[in-house]
Amino acid sequence: MADLEDLTARMREFTEAREWGRFHDVKSLTLALTGEVGEVAELVQWLPADAVLEGDLQARFGDELADVLLYLVRLADVAGVNLVAAGLAKLQRNEDRFPISVYRSIAPEHP
Amino acid sequence: MADLEDLTARMREFTEAREWGRFHDVKSLTLALTGEVGEVAELVQWLPADAVLEGDLQARFGDELADVLLYLVRLADVAGVNLVAAGLAKLQRNEDRFPISVYRSIAPEHP
Amino acid sequence: MADLEDLTARMREFTEAREWGRFHDVKSLTLALTGEVGEVAELVQWLPADAVLEGDLQARFGDELADVLLYLVRLADVAGVNLVAAGLAKLQRNEDRFPISVYRSIAPEHP
Amino acid sequence: MADLEDLTARMREFTEAREWGRFHDVKSLTLALTGEVGEVAELVQWLPADAVLEGDLQARFGDELADVLLYLVRLADVAGVNLVAAGLAKLQRNEDRFPISVYRSIAPEHP
Repeated sequence: MADLEDLTARMREFTEAREWGRFHDVKSLTLALTGEVGEVAELVQWLPADAVLEGDLQARFGDELADVLLYLVRLADVAGVNLVAAGLAKLQRNEDRFPISVYRSIAPEHP
Repeated sequence: MADLEDLTARMREFTEAREWGRFHDVKSLTLALTGEVGEVAELVQWLPADAVLEGDLQARFGDELADVLLYLVRLADVAGVNLVAAGLAKLQRNEDRFPISVYRSIAPEHP
Repeated sequence: MADLEDLTARMREFTEAREWGRFHDVKSLTLALTGEVGEVAELVQWLPADAVLEGDLQARFGDELADVLLYLVRLADVAGVNLVAAGLAKLQRNEDRFPISVYRSIAPEHP
Repeated sequence: MADLEDLTARMREFTEAREWGRFHDVKSLTLALTGEVGEVAELVQWLPADAVLEGDLQARFGDELADVLLYLVRLADVAGVNLVAAGLAKLQRNEDRFPISVYRSIAPEHP
């Protein structure tokens, strides 16, 4: 099974087994996503701009990215969004929106 | 190919083709992730707590979640994190950390 | 001295006394602000929509809002922004943008 | 009147005049704060680490910081938090927590 569908199904089972579904409305889960992105930010905020993550810091960073991913798939599931389809569609739109010939090496405003 | 590996590879190609790699350090991408989560929040901030997303709002919401996903996979790639492995490991740890017998129907602090 | 100017001056002294100025570029401080807003979110994410904060939770919430405020004034100082003037100007623009006669009791998109 | 008390009173009047109070629960306002911090992040995400904000970018940045400030004072008011007292108390605790003799020029984890 594809990664995201697998994670979505497992997060749903995890939630239902604990009867946590009543906590998982879109606003509460968006706040949870915000909290996890905040933890990602705290890990890198004082690093040099060209820092390369290694060792324990890289492991902790991966752990926080995992939290973001788990809430993201859960939020998509609750919102009735097909995250794989949405991601692929957005990537295609970005490829069309930022032609290589125009944007090569130019800082995008919102890539 | 699995979803996340596929998206990671395509985002890397997208970035390299535009020579945007020099913009994609971990701090800049974490700020980009923050920006996209902010757009997700703006879509739902004034909705009723029990709102169900439908139609155009659901489509726009999915579009914003897609932006979060694309930056998340890009950030993991730049940080050298295997997002699939990190996500599965974290889910397993959460299953161990929140035993069903203890946490059923109890609001978790950080599920 | 006005609150925000006082806090700005004290945060600048706090930073200079510790020679932390080299960490306080606008991107790093925006990440720090993101981290603190994430902590605010984590405190309320699973609460009922109509929750009223009291006691210890209210104190912890105030403590997190304080962190947001301190980084906000520091970020404004580093960015050369007069936060008081910017806040008053924005409030005036919002008053003009959302006429009472039109917006009374209507959910704003971005109030 | 002190800045923050003034802004708090004006935001309360702004809200009551539009009967928007029913939208301003702590979770919704925290989402609004998240959205505004996201807009701050989007303005600086691709800038060089040592970027100095000037001209139009500085003005737009100040405008976004103002949005963060306005929602922050509104959120504190709704939560029953005295933001001035909380900010001063937190600053004092930080001064005690990070002695100059120990932390001079050392990157703090969470200053």
